[in-house]
Amino acid sequence: MYTQNYPSRLLAEAVEQFSSLPGIGERSALRMALFLLRQKKEDALNFGTAINNLVENIIFCKVCHNLSDSETCSVCSSKKRDGSIICVVENVKDVMLVESTHQFNGLYHVLGGIISPIQGIGPNDLEINSLIERVSSGEVREVIFALSATMEGDTTNYYLHKKIKDHVKKVSVIARGVSFGDELEYTDEITLGRSIINRTPFENSVSE
Amino acid sequence: MYTQNYPSRLLAEAVEQFSSLPGIGERSALRMALFLLRQKKEDALNFGTAINNLVENIIFCKVCHNLSDSETCSVCSSKKRDGSIICVVENVKDVMLVESTHQFNGLYHVLGGIISPIQGIGPNDLEINSLIERVSSGEVREVIFALSATMEGDTTNYYLHKKIKDHVKKVSVIARGVSFGDELEYTDEITLGRSIINRTPFENSVSE
Repeated sequence: MYTQNYPSRLLAEAVEQFSSLPGIGERSALRMALFLLRQKKEDALNFGTAINNLVENIIFCKVCHNLSDSETCSVCSSKKRDGSIICVVENVKDVMLVESTHQFNGLYHVLGGIISPIQGIGPNDLEINSLIERVSSGEVREVIFALSATMEGDTTNYYLHKKIKDHVKKVSVIARGVSFGDELEYTDEITLGRSIINRTPFENSVSE
Repeated sequence: MYTQNYPSRLLAEAVEQFSSLPGIGERSALRMALFLLRQKKEDALNFGTAINNLVENIIFCKVCHNLSDSETCSVCSSKKRDGSIICVVENVKDVMLVESTHQFNGLYHVLGGIISPIQGIGPNDLEINSLIERVSSGEVREVIFALSATMEGDTTNYYLHKKIKDHVKKVSVIARGVSFGDELEYTDEITLGRSIINRTPFENSVSE
């Protein structure tokens, strides 16, 4: 709606950049640009600098492909982590999600996506070969698949399992079942069915 | 939710900066940072650079206080605009809104806010003295108040009118009435009342 009415080329360019972000329209983009102009100049300059620093200096961990500030990420280089368990996730955000549960003390492997023929993502677009290499060392005792509970996730799980099953003793998948706080009435039948098949001893069901 | 789980200090800093923007929470901020990392490095660097260029090089027009790339903004320096009419607005966004109507060919005066005792904004925080100076020149034939139809807007209109009425022949306020497309049933009585008091000849009511 504002197009061509920008009083400044610099403003128009900043708005264009903000609009390119996911979920941001031209109105919000303008609000953001004007917001920055109302801040102290120093603070506002920190904004662009932080972004450029990120883009310029971020490193992907050479072991697990997680984002990192150094060649090997903080998880892979930590001596407190158990290197014999690898949790396979789709992306960086998922590493953070699993970390936030404080229930996993092994290492990660970030695939960089999941197999999705519709989106044109095949096995070769993902970090699968490096996973096979990691488990081939013989030091890995268990691989946990923590991908989305979707068709694409299942396909990827199946493909990965075929590729690594000869190298590793135990391959597991995170449990699927009724979410914490969900009423049974609103749970779909596939989830409920699986939660019955994969029922756990009552003693184990008490959350820590 | 992610706090302390960022795999990279650079990522955490970028997320913090994005979170400082209006309407952006930590989740969205993370999504934005990761989105930039998925772009071509060149494009992603343009982002931070455009923002810093804006903050570093933006100029406020010395006449009307609109944003500008030069000392005098494109509106004030245009020979096609009528310098004898000044439209007083609250902020830069309002200039763009009025421009987008293509119904005004005069100049602007950006107050930088409106009088709001609750927010601690008094007349001295606004570009009021420079407005009085502009109209004192005797070249201004009409001043149009285009502020929000709120208590604060009305207060500011009243204050401005008192200050400039001796210097300028005609002071007007943008019309208040039933919005285009509004059903009468849902119009509040104050708006409807004003729209009756300020009724216009039918011939003038056809939109151009």
